[in-house]
Amino acid sequence: MTTQGWVSETVEGSYRLSFPLAARLFEGQSDFQKVEVVDTPTWGRMLLLDGLVQTTQRDEWVYHEMIAHVPLLAHRDPKRVLVIGGGDGGTVREVLKHPGVQEVVLCEIDAMVIEACKQHLPGIACALVEGDRRLTVRVGDGVAYVADEAQGFDVVIVDSSEPMGPGEELFSETFYTNVAQKALNAGGLLVAQTESPWYNRDVIERVYPMLGRCFAQAQPYLGFVPTYPSGCWTWAFCAKTPQPVLPEANQGRAAAITPLCRYYNPDLHRAAFVMPNFVVQQVEQPSVVSG
Amino acid sequence: MTTQGWVSETVEGSYRLSFPLAARLFEGQSDFQKVEVVDTPTWGRMLLLDGLVQTTQRDEWVYHEMIAHVPLLAHRDPKRVLVIGGGDGGTVREVLKHPGVQEVVLCEIDAMVIEACKQHLPGIACALVEGDRRLTVRVGDGVAYVADEAQGFDVVIVDSSEPMGPGEELFSETFYTNVAQKALNAGGLLVAQTESPWYNRDVIERVYPMLGRCFAQAQPYLGFVPTYPSGCWTWAFCAKTPQPVLPEANQGRAAAITPLCRYYNPDLHRAAFVMPNFVVQQVEQPSVVSG
Repeated sequence: MTTQGWVSETVEGSYRLSFPLAARLFEGQSDFQKVEVVDTPTWGRMLLLDGLVQTTQRDEWVYHEMIAHVPLLAHRDPKRVLVIGGGDGGTVREVLKHPGVQEVVLCEIDAMVIEACKQHLPGIACALVEGDRRLTVRVGDGVAYVADEAQGFDVVIVDSSEPMGPGEELFSETFYTNVAQKALNAGGLLVAQTESPWYNRDVIERVYPMLGRCFAQAQPYLGFVPTYPSGCWTWAFCAKTPQPVLPEANQGRAAAITPLCRYYNPDLHRAAFVMPNFVVQQVEQPSVVSG
Repeated sequence: MTTQGWVSETVEGSYRLSFPLAARLFEGQSDFQKVEVVDTPTWGRMLLLDGLVQTTQRDEWVYHEMIAHVPLLAHRDPKRVLVIGGGDGGTVREVLKHPGVQEVVLCEIDAMVIEACKQHLPGIACALVEGDRRLTVRVGDGVAYVADEAQGFDVVIVDSSEPMGPGEELFSETFYTNVAQKALNAGGLLVAQTESPWYNRDVIERVYPMLGRCFAQAQPYLGFVPTYPSGCWTWAFCAKTPQPVLPEANQGRAAAITPLCRYYNPDLHRAAFVMPNFVVQQVEQPSVVSG
């Protein structure tokens, strides 16, 4: 694969991660953001939004398995699942691996993301390309959907981009209050991506106290996503009623999904909830608290 | 802090991680490698060897706590500890936190690394700057030391640079055979850094079968080191006699060290040994096996 320079994600003043660039496959400006798909020899094809890496062919399974299987295997019987964001399709692909799931709604604000991924990242977007009778795709604002219409879900997954631009409102207390009080059934679970404790301490210190006000249980779990800043990523696990992160009764389902995964297994599910001391401190004793 | 361009670690053809550069504090060419210390606003001061980031002020504790406390808290009563490499002093700083340790030998091949760190990274090199009656610093070749002289150690820690240049022999079967058969006491433990499963699959697939031939028990553990490639790092835990990675009898010592740590705690110690599926495959079913 011949290369032509580098493709870089730059966080001004702190960080730049670059990969050799083989080809630019798609570039467009939607109503919401700049959408790009590039090809790289190291990580395969890569989706960037406003210049920030969202997913790559070679490591996408870490993020998508961890955001989907943890809540679906924590819930005692998830039948209806809402995914907000996630227009690349990787999260719904994983959700649809669960035979007990009867209905999945994907609510993505940016149609250009969906179309670019269907065309250029079909291995990630396969459920969008091939369709599934259980899947409904809504192009629209997840914040408004949750405020006005969404109800009766067992699991809500917030697969957002960074907390600026179109993803910003997905990190607000109003949104999470609506998820907890309107969208979710009793016993319902929310999982949301919450950035890196190394580069986004401000997000973590703001979001976890907020989630703690909206849910009876709110705690982080960790995974290694090598193409995200620092490689150390967090997701928030939130429950309307406190419960184990992997109930004993769900062990069989967790074991059954493992052969379909490259990252997830039941022991890793539990281990992902064990935090290093410095992350415990960010979550439990934030130096900056705001509403 | 004003900046002047970027300092980068480049792996040709696959990866470049860059940080804003505030100042170049030290640059020298030793008999073994290029030694640099720079200052950055994001990660503080940073040691590079032959252009590869070895440690930074802001995240050094992850690597040093995990390479030191895991074997010292796995061993039932570590009294004599050998550290090979580790000329920055961070690993011996952590080892010396254990009151039961009576003697530590640091065997570093490159005097320039020791001197540059004592001068420019005193928070990491504090044990080298201040001294400790239990610590002996040897400037010399760890491979030869283990082959010819070293014996009677309870724990050996290989805190090497990458497996090229001066670190290359520290990834050889002859070296590990000598560690197991000559340097270590009965019940002895080895821990060695073994690179990233994302960027150094070849190293992992070669080293773990080799360690399995030298030790009765050889298994990886993981930690998040944000300034290393991918952020996902492995260490090998090897025992002459199979044993738990954290014996019940050592729980009290593990709990006592936790308040002195920013990353390590006993639950994390155990969780670090739970591997994602793709790492299990690299270790147990390597696609490339060589002697």
